Amino acid sequence: MPNFSSATAVLKRRLGACVSTDHDALFAASFDGSKLSFLPDAVVRPRTRAHITAVLTLANKHRVPVTTRGAGSSLTGSGSPVKGGWVLDLSKWNKITVDADVGMAQVQAGAVVGDVHQAVEALGWFYPPDPASKQYSTIGGNIACNAGGMHGGKYGVTRDFVLALKGFLPTGEYVEWGASTKKFSAGFNLRDLWIGSEGMLGVITEATLKLIPLPAARWTLLTAFEDELAAFKAVRALFAQRVQPAICEFLDRYSVQCAEKKSGKIVFAGQAGRPVVLLEFAGTPSEVADQKAVVLAWAKASTLAFREARDRAESEQLWEVRRKCSGAMFALGDSKLNEDIVVPMRNYEKFAVFLDKLRKSSRLPIPTFGHLGDGNLHVNIMYHRENRAEYLRAEKAVGTLMAGVVKLGGAISGEHGIGLAKTPFLRLQHSPAQIKAMKAVKLALDPNGILNPGKMFTLFKVWEHPRLKIALPWDHK
Amino acid sequence: MPNFSSATAVLKRRLGACVSTDHDALFAASFDGSKLSFLPDAVVRPRTRAHITAVLTLANKHRVPVTTRGAGSSLTGSGSPVKGGWVLDLSKWNKITVDADVGMAQVQAGAVVGDVHQAVEALGWFYPPDPASKQYSTIGGNIACNAGGMHGGKYGVTRDFVLALKGFLPTGEYVEWGASTKKFSAGFNLRDLWIGSEGMLGVITEATLKLIPLPAARWTLLTAFEDELAAFKAVRALFAQRVQPAICEFLDRYSVQCAEKKSGKIVFAGQAGRPVVLLEFAGTPSEVADQKAVVLAWAKASTLAFREARDRAESEQLWEVRRKCSGAMFALGDSKLNEDIVVPMRNYEKFAVFLDKLRKSSRLPIPTFGHLGDGNLHVNIMYHRENRAEYLRAEKAVGTLMAGVVKLGGAISGEHGIGLAKTPFLRLQHSPAQIKAMKAVKLALDPNGILNPGKMFTLFKVWEHPRLKIALPWDHK
Repeated sequence: MPNFSSATAVLKRRLGACVSTDHDALFAASFDGSKLSFLPDAVVRPRTRAHITAVLTLANKHRVPVTTRGAGSSLTGSGSPVKGGWVLDLSKWNKITVDADVGMAQVQAGAVVGDVHQAVEALGWFYPPDPASKQYSTIGGNIACNAGGMHGGKYGVTRDFVLALKGFLPTGEYVEWGASTKKFSAGFNLRDLWIGSEGMLGVITEATLKLIPLPAARWTLLTAFEDELAAFKAVRALFAQRVQPAICEFLDRYSVQCAEKKSGKIVFAGQAGRPVVLLEFAGTPSEVADQKAVVLAWAKASTLAFREARDRAESEQLWEVRRKCSGAMFALGDSKLNEDIVVPMRNYEKFAVFLDKLRKSSRLPIPTFGHLGDGNLHVNIMYHRENRAEYLRAEKAVGTLMAGVVKLGGAISGEHGIGLAKTPFLRLQHSPAQIKAMKAVKLALDPNGILNPGKMFTLFKVWEHPRLKIALPWDHK
Repeated sequence: MPNFSSATAVLKRRLGACVSTDHDALFAASFDGSKLSFLPDAVVRPRTRAHITAVLTLANKHRVPVTTRGAGSSLTGSGSPVKGGWVLDLSKWNKITVDADVGMAQVQAGAVVGDVHQAVEALGWFYPPDPASKQYSTIGGNIACNAGGMHGGKYGVTRDFVLALKGFLPTGEYVEWGASTKKFSAGFNLRDLWIGSEGMLGVITEATLKLIPLPAARWTLLTAFEDELAAFKAVRALFAQRVQPAICEFLDRYSVQCAEKKSGKIVFAGQAGRPVVLLEFAGTPSEVADQKAVVLAWAKASTLAFREARDRAESEQLWEVRRKCSGAMFALGDSKLNEDIVVPMRNYEKFAVFLDKLRKSSRLPIPTFGHLGDGNLHVNIMYHRENRAEYLRAEKAVGTLMAGVVKLGGAISGEHGIGLAKTPFLRLQHSPAQIKAMKAVKLALDPNGILNPGKMFTLFKVWEHPRLKIALPWDHK
């Protein structure tokens, strides 16, 4: 690793108290939710735009890597400063301003997504993206990996709610992409190029978010199925009726069994260990009432059993299962490869067959749950880290999974991004020409390669690197 | 202009009957809806992917400009081959396949938008983008300029319905961006970079479109106002109630007067020459009924007069006015600068004041109408081409308009793009750093600058160029 100490000394002279080099600060900024830790040389907490320009200008001059950081809750290592250098911490840039008349929010990158939800919902507006990390993760990070969550199928993902971005080019110039308007067709769309670029093409400091009216009514239905294939078929049949649930969460039998074992409670009375689908419908009261009639008829015809939530409290009980299932899986192994693949809806049944084969060939537990509205499934390959045979089978299984998903026309990541963890699979998703084009864009905007280097395109064998044994607030334990 | 005849001879040998060089074919491909005409050296109608790769490979080798063409209905000159070379005509690539179970459409670039509407609506699905040119314009062109239309405010624009793109890099390699899934977070988002790039960053041959359930009910209300300021205030008040009309079309008094004069009919009985707003609400029957109650209360309190459409035929009558007003304006001048600017909703009233001042200072009629759901207003500066004083005032007025819009936080184009016609204003919208970044991206993907050269960044003084005197099917006359 090159030595950045003289450049860091210059940075300190320029920015003074904004720059930390004490070990605790460096350690805290050395890892993200992946727990892959690499000590940076400094942590910068800029207070002004000029500070950010100064950091980037110096970084270009001295070729120092810069990794932008919000909450650090990324699961892929995209927030870990793998090449050292400077961490640009924007977590204090967290102002939220809602224009309640027109339904837009002006949000700084460090604002926590849950705080945005609260601010806009208090005013009768709705910002649908809701990653599981929402109580911690920031809007900047959500934009950087184009985060999704449960509402993706009906409402869309982060990209669908970003109207404008402000921030800095890798070379330090302040720029604005888009306007606080719902239409914008002037010049190349670098706003959307930034979305999902994992902090490699610019530093996002502020976003204008589009809001939609907060649905006045919600109705929740829990359904159980004979097996996964039956669940997928039934859900497809529901969507084929032009019905769009706001949320459509699937838990396979293995996820259900983990949750039941851990909680000591049966998810669906009389249907222990069955796959379940949790549906939520949202809209005006009459719209939801209309949907309810259609959905209940569907449930009678297509499920093994179903149960309406009679009130908000009962609905919350149902959601509790979904939230806890991820942590409960650690009964099956001390380590988890949590992949957020996406399968096209037309291939759900084929994927169920594929996954069963993978379970058999890998001889590993692979509890799976996720968002059936958009095919974004969290496939959890469980193994014991100290068991070398299991570890090798897990490594092989994840490769087989990714290749299988791409073959079914899907995506290797739906909401986490590539970071370090998915670099071995990028070439399954993208052809050499596609990667060539991406790299050309990177080089064009960041000629010195200072922004978040070592990510996306550089092969990183995540299994060869130790992970911190540390508890994070968003851990599913 | 360089001579491309030897390169064209090579192209003919390679692609045979796909290549036309007869004068009629060249002339037909020499202009778009802007009627700015520049003869190309050849028109290529590729039949296979290999043909497209061959065209682009040869074009790079011999540095021949390539302009991709669909219907040629662009209003900005983005489809006119200003630098000559080869026109790549994709209008026959027009296959449409709808996956009715999952709500997606696989559409080739040359498919006409109206045909896509018909195909999906027959199956109970809805593709909201609906530019005025929809009976002619192609999906490829709509993607190239990120077309909008009347539904933008509630549903979004073309970008919001594109899940995946297939096509070719400027250097000829076949690529695919995204998948037929609603989530995709793997690698840089070159899909969205292509959207709105006006054929300068790649050749789009196919798109996967996201569909939403077709609203079962629609309800139309025509409202009249004392003046434009009152109309803008009232509409803002409606949106502030968290009500989102599917369509919210505004016609100022001048547009209304033109329509009334031409048709001999009063738009709103008893309110001749008043600005009107035409509202359409869409959703399930009960959802629309809910909205109706709120909207009628608003109309009673906030409009000068209002009238419900009692049935579909009466609603069609109302829409007729909106469709005809653009053509009726030629009573005010034989030439029109039709600008599709966007104003943030919070600044609607300020814009009304600004526009009044502009009418006075320019001493030109400026009838204005457009989409109040998203602030995308069509400002029509009318003048007589042969009257030099008027022409100069029109030229000045358009500059003042663009600067004013940007000052109000808006956009110089909401759905037409830059092409040739808006090149003088790009620098009002974008800082030097922003343009530098866009040009860097262009150079990175198209190192020889062969794709649609002369557009967006090169200053083109549209008023110095003659326009063809020719009637096009989509002309508003």
